[in-house]
Amino acid sequence: MEKSYHMTPDEFRRYGRAVIDWIADYYEQVEKYPVMSQVQPGEIRARLPHAPPEHGEAFETILADVERLILPGITHWQSPNFFAYFPSNTSGPAILGELLSAGLGVQGMLWITSPACTELETHVLDWVAEMLDLPQTFRSTASGGGVIQDSASSATLCALLAARERALRNSSPKAKLRQRLVAYTSTQAHSSVEKAVRIAGLNPDNLRFIEVDDTYAMRPEALAQRVAADQAAGLLPFFVSATVGTTSSNAIDPLPQIGPICKQHDLWLHVDAAMSGTAALCPEYRFIHAGLEFADSYCFNPHKWMFTNFDCDCFYIARKADLIQALSVLPEYLRNQASESGAVIDYRDWQVPLGRRFRALKLWFVIRHYGIAGLQHHVRRHIELAQEFVRWVQDSPDFELAAPAPLNLVCFRHKAGDEFNRRLEDALNRSGKLYLTHTVLDGRYTLRLVVGQTQTEKQHVSAAWRQIQETAASLLSS
Amino acid sequence: MEKSYHMTPDEFRRYGRAVIDWIADYYEQVEKYPVMSQVQPGEIRARLPHAPPEHGEAFETILADVERLILPGITHWQSPNFFAYFPSNTSGPAILGELLSAGLGVQGMLWITSPACTELETHVLDWVAEMLDLPQTFRSTASGGGVIQDSASSATLCALLAARERALRNSSPKAKLRQRLVAYTSTQAHSSVEKAVRIAGLNPDNLRFIEVDDTYAMRPEALAQRVAADQAAGLLPFFVSATVGTTSSNAIDPLPQIGPICKQHDLWLHVDAAMSGTAALCPEYRFIHAGLEFADSYCFNPHKWMFTNFDCDCFYIARKADLIQALSVLPEYLRNQASESGAVIDYRDWQVPLGRRFRALKLWFVIRHYGIAGLQHHVRRHIELAQEFVRWVQDSPDFELAAPAPLNLVCFRHKAGDEFNRRLEDALNRSGKLYLTHTVLDGRYTLRLVVGQTQTEKQHVSAAWRQIQETAASLLSS
Repeated sequence: MEKSYHMTPDEFRRYGRAVIDWIADYYEQVEKYPVMSQVQPGEIRARLPHAPPEHGEAFETILADVERLILPGITHWQSPNFFAYFPSNTSGPAILGELLSAGLGVQGMLWITSPACTELETHVLDWVAEMLDLPQTFRSTASGGGVIQDSASSATLCALLAARERALRNSSPKAKLRQRLVAYTSTQAHSSVEKAVRIAGLNPDNLRFIEVDDTYAMRPEALAQRVAADQAAGLLPFFVSATVGTTSSNAIDPLPQIGPICKQHDLWLHVDAAMSGTAALCPEYRFIHAGLEFADSYCFNPHKWMFTNFDCDCFYIARKADLIQALSVLPEYLRNQASESGAVIDYRDWQVPLGRRFRALKLWFVIRHYGIAGLQHHVRRHIELAQEFVRWVQDSPDFELAAPAPLNLVCFRHKAGDEFNRRLEDALNRSGKLYLTHTVLDGRYTLRLVVGQTQTEKQHVSAAWRQIQETAASLLSS
Repeated sequence: MEKSYHMTPDEFRRYGRAVIDWIADYYEQVEKYPVMSQVQPGEIRARLPHAPPEHGEAFETILADVERLILPGITHWQSPNFFAYFPSNTSGPAILGELLSAGLGVQGMLWITSPACTELETHVLDWVAEMLDLPQTFRSTASGGGVIQDSASSATLCALLAARERALRNSSPKAKLRQRLVAYTSTQAHSSVEKAVRIAGLNPDNLRFIEVDDTYAMRPEALAQRVAADQAAGLLPFFVSATVGTTSSNAIDPLPQIGPICKQHDLWLHVDAAMSGTAALCPEYRFIHAGLEFADSYCFNPHKWMFTNFDCDCFYIARKADLIQALSVLPEYLRNQASESGAVIDYRDWQVPLGRRFRALKLWFVIRHYGIAGLQHHVRRHIELAQEFVRWVQDSPDFELAAPAPLNLVCFRHKAGDEFNRRLEDALNRSGKLYLTHTVLDGRYTLRLVVGQTQTEKQHVSAAWRQIQETAASLLSS
């Protein structure tokens, strides 16, 4: 054996157990910590040594420093009292799938660089399509297929790029046409649509934010009018990003009406169901996907609400050729017989980066550990708890609902006005007992409570409501 | 307690240990497996159950299936006999850092969503800048700073987007100018430059592949001539991507000559040192970064050759404002006091996706476990082993070097011609005893051998050379 600074297999066994135990302890104690980190800007950094170590340190020291230096700066997304932003829930099987993926350390950029990495991903994404009852076109057995992206932002970007290239394919001069392309989304859509339009080099003025109805869903007649007006002005409408469950208020754009408009005008329809798609595991919530058969692409995030740790966005495309033509660049050093045969998928052509981890492993672990029935149980329970919260708000003399709550996100506000709600949010989050965030709906400051973390049960939602009422009362009387 | 399908903390401890042991066993046995997976297309998938399970399965069953169903389809990147593509080496501390990150399950998109995730990243990237002796401008204490991207492809895309927006900032009409922007890289650059140009919606005809010298490095005078010609034609040169260690042959573009050309014409200079940057840990190899003070952005990948599992690309920018202005979109539901105060970094504005894992943890673990001295030792050893291989090739009557080998990548070929080298590569990889890949240099089929996997020692490189010679002899006599 040569001189080595590597961790030996025996050390790996010992320290590996220590980290596993650390995580198990963490989950057992997570409710003890303030949910939102209470540190000030720069506070964590100030405690770290200025210079990197010249010589290696003991693993025990490093792990102790996680507890001592890092933990105070953690906002506890895995706390059952985390109701902010969106869930980013994880689970035992997901964590262990990620661990195994890190251990195997394979690159899945080409089929040949680890055939199992590609084939398990294709297979599990077909499973997921079946579990959510997605249209047949999205299956790998048809013209389409699924791929794991890091995030819905990247999925939206890939959809936009495929749509852009499809729109320009038979046109010239491309340069002029590119600047006349017009994309559409609602005023309530995620910021990733605007970011994708910018990245793709389209004219930022050519992204239309279509008005919404009183449920904050896109108004299809407004879309149709705007498309017609743009065409009349000599522009080239090409892309619509619709949302199933907006980040702001969980609004569901009406695909059955938007879809035919897209077909009529040959617009690419992308559907972003980042959080809410998971609800379609349960037949009674599949109404959210009505009209999805019109979509050219679709994504949802098991890393939000399906117990799979970030990053794991499932992105489906109806015609995989559209995506590959937009993203494939083949240098000599990546050529190989399997790819040239055309018999395999090379996922590097389905995404922005070249390299990729074996992310299908954790999704496979999650589906097999829970089974469809187990996943349905927990998703139903989260929705039930949110709906119970809805009733509490409705029954309260001081609070009101701010938007429909079809699933697990509740938008509500105290009747005392914007400034009061802002102070209420701040006081609640500073208490450390729960964490929730806000949005603005119809110009009014609105609190958001999402039920979706793995360990969130009735007691946590009840305690949150109690804390909200008590804090409001205390602010009013102070 | 409510009804639950979740893994309990006790189960997590038990199964977690099983996975840790599985990984330790895997590393102890990895040399027993064929390095390149020997399965046929579709073989792995055919063994998987057609439908997802209705009910959950025992974790023991799932883990046994990894061994039975997945392992035959793995190409063993972590084998000490893996010499293909580029290294993607990992290590005990990196795997455990990734595990801890998955366990904490935090989202680092904003400072407030986990201050430690942001502050540790900023701090460790300053450490790395110091360890590689990068220019002061790249430190967070100056106008710049570092961020972890998933890959060099994404880093190059971000650099190109920042450059594009800088070039267009004070111009109008932007639409017309955008199509006149011209980017430059060498004929030997990574395919990610071409992919980035396409994604960014630039005119693909406006990417110039500058010719190289006989070391496969960009010819600065050819760059200068081409820039002048494009300017004379009314085009707008704006971006140069130079490479320190090309994927194909490890060529090093001459930054001391390229840099002044960029300054003179106000071109953004991005430097991609994806694999080779790691060598700058050792003072004797810092010559590779000569001229880096001219760069506007720089990246290298600890997930290639610094014992940190994928994904971990360190991307540095000289003026962070350029990047943020290109990528920042701020919706109401992400607004918070810390961000508005301007006192913190929100890394969502430094990358394409919104969400992000706590990737700094694994890099911090690696640096602390090895120390600078430990990392230097292993990098030096890899280079020594590659240089020994160079001498064996030079001393051989049958083989020849195909390019200079400044570091750990050796390009070589048998003198019997292209078709023979193709057959030799194929026979070696089918043997399962080692895995290497090829490139084409000066129109000739060329074998590539990279020394960079964590466990690769003298015996593995010696065995590879023996196998190459014996296989060649056997092919010649058959």
